[in-house]
Amino acid sequence: MSSKAIAEFIGTFILVFFGVGSAVLMGDQIGFHGIAMAFGFSIVAAAYGFGAISGAQLNPAVSLGFLTSGRMGMSDFVTYCIAQILGAVAAAAVVLMIASGKADYSLAENGLGQNGYGAGYNGGYSMLAALIFEFVATFLFVTVILGATQSDAPVGFGGLAIGLTLAGIHLVGIDVTGVSVNPARSIGPALFAGGQALADLWLFILAPLAGGLLAGLLHGAGITRSPHVKPQG
Amino acid sequence: MSSKAIAEFIGTFILVFFGVGSAVLMGDQIGFHGIAMAFGFSIVAAAYGFGAISGAQLNPAVSLGFLTSGRMGMSDFVTYCIAQILGAVAAAAVVLMIASGKADYSLAENGLGQNGYGAGYNGGYSMLAALIFEFVATFLFVTVILGATQSDAPVGFGGLAIGLTLAGIHLVGIDVTGVSVNPARSIGPALFAGGQALADLWLFILAPLAGGLLAGLLHGAGITRSPHVKPQG
Amino acid sequence: MSSKAIAEFIGTFILVFFGVGSAVLMGDQIGFHGIAMAFGFSIVAAAYGFGAISGAQLNPAVSLGFLTSGRMGMSDFVTYCIAQILGAVAAAAVVLMIASGKADYSLAENGLGQNGYGAGYNGGYSMLAALIFEFVATFLFVTVILGATQSDAPVGFGGLAIGLTLAGIHLVGIDVTGVSVNPARSIGPALFAGGQALADLWLFILAPLAGGLLAGLLHGAGITRSPHVKPQG
Amino acid sequence: MSSKAIAEFIGTFILVFFGVGSAVLMGDQIGFHGIAMAFGFSIVAAAYGFGAISGAQLNPAVSLGFLTSGRMGMSDFVTYCIAQILGAVAAAAVVLMIASGKADYSLAENGLGQNGYGAGYNGGYSMLAALIFEFVATFLFVTVILGATQSDAPVGFGGLAIGLTLAGIHLVGIDVTGVSVNPARSIGPALFAGGQALADLWLFILAPLAGGLLAGLLHGAGITRSPHVKPQG
Repeated sequence: MSSKAIAEFIGTFILVFFGVGSAVLMGDQIGFHGIAMAFGFSIVAAAYGFGAISGAQLNPAVSLGFLTSGRMGMSDFVTYCIAQILGAVAAAAVVLMIASGKADYSLAENGLGQNGYGAGYNGGYSMLAALIFEFVATFLFVTVILGATQSDAPVGFGGLAIGLTLAGIHLVGIDVTGVSVNPARSIGPALFAGGQALADLWLFILAPLAGGLLAGLLHGAGITRSPHVKPQG
Repeated sequence: MSSKAIAEFIGTFILVFFGVGSAVLMGDQIGFHGIAMAFGFSIVAAAYGFGAISGAQLNPAVSLGFLTSGRMGMSDFVTYCIAQILGAVAAAAVVLMIASGKADYSLAENGLGQNGYGAGYNGGYSMLAALIFEFVATFLFVTVILGATQSDAPVGFGGLAIGLTLAGIHLVGIDVTGVSVNPARSIGPALFAGGQALADLWLFILAPLAGGLLAGLLHGAGITRSPHVKPQG
Repeated sequence: MSSKAIAEFIGTFILVFFGVGSAVLMGDQIGFHGIAMAFGFSIVAAAYGFGAISGAQLNPAVSLGFLTSGRMGMSDFVTYCIAQILGAVAAAAVVLMIASGKADYSLAENGLGQNGYGAGYNGGYSMLAALIFEFVATFLFVTVILGATQSDAPVGFGGLAIGLTLAGIHLVGIDVTGVSVNPARSIGPALFAGGQALADLWLFILAPLAGGLLAGLLHGAGITRSPHVKPQG
Repeated sequence: MSSKAIAEFIGTFILVFFGVGSAVLMGDQIGFHGIAMAFGFSIVAAAYGFGAISGAQLNPAVSLGFLTSGRMGMSDFVTYCIAQILGAVAAAAVVLMIASGKADYSLAENGLGQNGYGAGYNGGYSMLAALIFEFVATFLFVTVILGATQSDAPVGFGGLAIGLTLAGIHLVGIDVTGVSVNPARSIGPALFAGGQALADLWLFILAPLAGGLLAGLLHGAGITRSPHVKPQG
């Protein structure tokens, strides 16, 4: 495994371990605000810990934005996506192992921080609301990421800015979908939770990828790119 | 549309999508503290995502401060204000679409995160209290922005400092007015909420602009400007 | 009034407007955690808005540390302290004006975010506990400030680090004393609250100054100073 | 005592004073979310206050990672660990003195923020869950620290990134073990709390050291190290 793949694996592990872990193990105590911060801080951790190796993309929708804006090749894209999904699955497994150490935890009843929508999931939002939220939020997220990491952005601030952006997105949408904006983050818990989580999974793959795709295309076309930065494709 | 206008449009969209969105969709779960953080993080997102294009002012009162301190021309000022208002309106529309996907959401009853004052609005503060808060808070906000972005300020910190400043202002005033300090942020939700929100709108245009104007004049006159920075008008 | 004095005046105004304002106007909604963040963000705002003018010390105990470590002269020290106290008083007055716009607010009953200790104040901690907390917390605070602003510290991070440090201190001590670590912050509200707040004021002048004095002496003697930095006295 | 030892002593004092202090004195008011932020901000305070002197490692598991990755010698390692443990014990003593100033505080009943697991401790997680959490969390923490402080990392961001990482870890695990990831942090309160806290202490020495050891070995072997950085052993 290349060192980039290892970095994406551990980085996405951190994202799911912090974010999903906080929801599963501490959700009752820290609420949606605390969970939002945990997701945000996970990006900060991975970005400063692994940014120099792989760029800490941690998210197939983000990698798709880098690919379609011309800042990443297809071979790296495939490697990154596989490592991200494996990292998310591994972290979900570890969170489940820890959760199982609590007497009254039950995977069927308490879940594993999976994404969802509709009756019975958090605020019970419609599928259309979930689609709009995930598409818009991912488009904004990836647009910010591509802007904050372009060559004339202030050095070193990307990881912090992107982490707080993800925290902000969670402060808007946990009640709607649990917030994915990241297919890997959704796949990890869904594999263990099964049932409705697996049935809903298509939305949390499709909508984030569509948002990331649009963000990448607009950035690549120069519409959301700094005028001082030349295309890199 | 120029790339600056697009940047101000999407940037202000982010401000309202995060801030107003968190209030409408998650207010019951995250409380005023969580909403304050969402507003703050929206500035961080827009500043690092779009700062290199437009400066991410996102706010007509801020742009007025740049204009009156001599750091921005009248033509850009008009473009920025229009793009900011359009971005805020678009984001309010998207938040409304998502909120409408929840069975028990009603625009008339739950509102759209509009600003207000007086009996029936949050703490029921008087119009005078609302005026004082909005004027003083916007003056401090725009003064900090002009200081944190002047030419001898440490590179890259502006977006983070300004975002946390806006979060701090929300931690003081959500119960008073919902916190505007930004006419665009107030106009967006008010257009959809109508009624009292539209009737109160004058205050959230006037007081922030007055605060931004004073901040710009004092900065332009050198009173709150670093002595190492020459006037730029 | 010199521009340094104006910067310390507005900067300390921000500290009290955010911190005390959040406690008085939003304490019931955001709790001690939210108040702690507001105090922290006020430092960030003032540091990046005014750091280039006056250093944004905002606090006589901090200024005493700069004086006794040899990094500030006596004339500036006096000017700074006067401006800081006036800024705190002005901000307390504005917070009181806004609070008075709420029908059920009463200065006598709800207070103005004043510091205190003993029976009837928050957790009812003893005078000895209050003294220990204020002395130790101010010593740590000023030691961190002197370290984070010395000449070989990473450029630009001081304001953020110091703000989050103050937030951390509030997360420890609001229940004990309301957290002063700053005579100006205590004097502002006490002048309006009167009574017990005035009677307790000596502790919130003495203990923070003692903590700042010790921090300044140890830093000046090289004990807590980076070995790469020469004495500046 | 060398200035490095003094820096590690005061720095670890800050960690325990903020983190354990917030749990003991403010836990009922700020909850697990607030305690997590206090731990995170303590790292920020110590890193920017003392980073230039000792690197602000504050934690024997972190120092072990520096040792085994070849970035620190054995003599410094021993000095650091002793200073860290003494700082943690001193801070726990001061927190206890302040807590004792509250009429209804009782060390036996309220504890001193000690770590633990099993029936009667927070969520009542099993020993296995505690071991997994502490090992995995410390491995991730030390890996991030080694990455964020390597020679090609962006200058100045380490302290902030590491602090927010520790906050994130606390948002996952306070209900499981109270979160140690740091033998010194566990030893301090346990010495005063005695009983079960002392009986459980082995886990909070062993698991963090094992996590730090693995992180150091992988980093030293180049597996989680930036390819641009040469081995420093």
